[in-house]
Amino acid sequence: MASHGRIPPPLPLPHANVRKFKIALCQLMVTSDKERNINHARVRIEDAAAKGAKLVVLPEIWNCPLSLENLSKYAEDIDAEEAPSISMLSEVAAQQNITIIGGSIPEKTNGRLFNTCCVLGPDGKIKAKHRKLHLFDVDIIGDITFRESDILKAGGEPTVVDTDVGRIGIGICHDIRFPELAMLYRLRDVDLICYPGAFNLSTGQLLWEMMQRSRAADNQLFVATCSPAREPNTMSDYIIWGHSTLVGPFGDIIATTGHQMATVLGEIDYSIIQTRRENLPLEIQRRADIYELVDVQGKPPG
Amino acid sequence: MASHGRIPPPLPLPHANVRKFKIALCQLMVTSDKERNINHARVRIEDAAAKGAKLVVLPEIWNCPLSLENLSKYAEDIDAEEAPSISMLSEVAAQQNITIIGGSIPEKTNGRLFNTCCVLGPDGKIKAKHRKLHLFDVDIIGDITFRESDILKAGGEPTVVDTDVGRIGIGICHDIRFPELAMLYRLRDVDLICYPGAFNLSTGQLLWEMMQRSRAADNQLFVATCSPAREPNTMSDYIIWGHSTLVGPFGDIIATTGHQMATVLGEIDYSIIQTRRENLPLEIQRRADIYELVDVQGKPPG
Repeated sequence: MASHGRIPPPLPLPHANVRKFKIALCQLMVTSDKERNINHARVRIEDAAAKGAKLVVLPEIWNCPLSLENLSKYAEDIDAEEAPSISMLSEVAAQQNITIIGGSIPEKTNGRLFNTCCVLGPDGKIKAKHRKLHLFDVDIIGDITFRESDILKAGGEPTVVDTDVGRIGIGICHDIRFPELAMLYRLRDVDLICYPGAFNLSTGQLLWEMMQRSRAADNQLFVATCSPAREPNTMSDYIIWGHSTLVGPFGDIIATTGHQMATVLGEIDYSIIQTRRENLPLEIQRRADIYELVDVQGKPPG
Repeated sequence: MASHGRIPPPLPLPHANVRKFKIALCQLMVTSDKERNINHARVRIEDAAAKGAKLVVLPEIWNCPLSLENLSKYAEDIDAEEAPSISMLSEVAAQQNITIIGGSIPEKTNGRLFNTCCVLGPDGKIKAKHRKLHLFDVDIIGDITFRESDILKAGGEPTVVDTDVGRIGIGICHDIRFPELAMLYRLRDVDLICYPGAFNLSTGQLLWEMMQRSRAADNQLFVATCSPAREPNTMSDYIIWGHSTLVGPFGDIIATTGHQMATVLGEIDYSIIQTRRENLPLEIQRRADIYELVDVQGKPPG
């Protein structure tokens, strides 16, 4: 049954234990050596936690180089607990007492492949698993051809997770291109949307920053993105844009970086959401007599 | 009755006689002298037509200085044909054989005030009238307080108009802040959305360009905005941002300007819409099983 746009959010849970905290976006350099990638990610997460981050976000596909051929080779079976990448995240989340948005890795299950983000809590447990909803199929002659749907299956539902650092909605890369998903997360009352993503040069320069600023400003919430770093000697046609960024609820860039390996540290203060929404109450200015975004899978109220 | 997102558009009319044409955005300097404003607008429109523009867009509130106190004083009764500003637009549209998106003027009718955009065809007739749907009420302590809804009534429906230069959707200023309206126009298959608007310094710098690029890229269509020029000696707290801009369906800026008086000339080629949508078919990548934008007033198909 569909829940309509202007009803109260269907998840009446408490949002956050903290209002103000540090977030780290680990723009990792990824190699073809999976073990090295896992060890390297652990070091970067530990470093971010040492700098005070309570929430750490990793990039899309951080345990192998981003190419369609690699996905199956590096895939892990998360449900069967045969997933060294996720085991590492679980360990380090518990050790460091932090929440981790685990970027994404190729997930294999029952002969199918997904592009999957795990969210780990400070107890080391998987709190949510988001499978990329919108696969990136593009065909621009002379520029880029890339068809994820030849290899991957798309996920079946959006992901909202209540963590120690707020209610978080998850999207992976091309998911950000669809304003409806961000609007749906707004309806479900999230504080922050995290998009691990690996835009390329052509779409990155034009769209990456603009998309995240727009999702944040339109919905008056925080948006965090995390990309892999650009591999300087890559043989691939797919040149990573980088530019992991934290955006505030006014579409303001709080922290960002270029295309090299980096950890972007920024402060999130959820009280700003409330201030922005009081200053400019977009929510009550919407015209339900003209348009309405329906959360198709949302639970009806009550 | 509501029409749903993924059904065919409800207006099966031919879109445009031309695929490629020049558009002009007249960033007018507005004074407190209404007659001067009307004469000046006429000169700028004639000049744009002489330069080959087939479509001319004017700014929000171009016949009087933008302040809530002025709206009633300068208002015209369009339905009663007591509207010198609109009469001029009608004359010049017919003389020059062009389409005009007439920015907006304060409209009075039956004791009510609207912020209204008239669309004039090359026959000089009013083809459509859009009344601003989302009134701008903002309250930021120490920065800006502005409550249009104290003075104005909001319009009742979105506006899509088939012209000689394509199917055009209209929004006025704050209407651009609502992605749903642009998405609704996409559902109704418009080629171009025109937003006369007068953002101020604080929201202009942060949001103006980003909003229009985002509406264009998300919906893969053209967006044109037209602002008044900034009055250098203004006594008002409301400092106009300017920056009238034409944006292509990839979120690319085709032509723009600063805050001074200017006519922005750009070329629109509707075939680019088709190319972009073939390259990256966002429309068929949407997830109707997860979200759906409902065009509440849209006619059901068939």
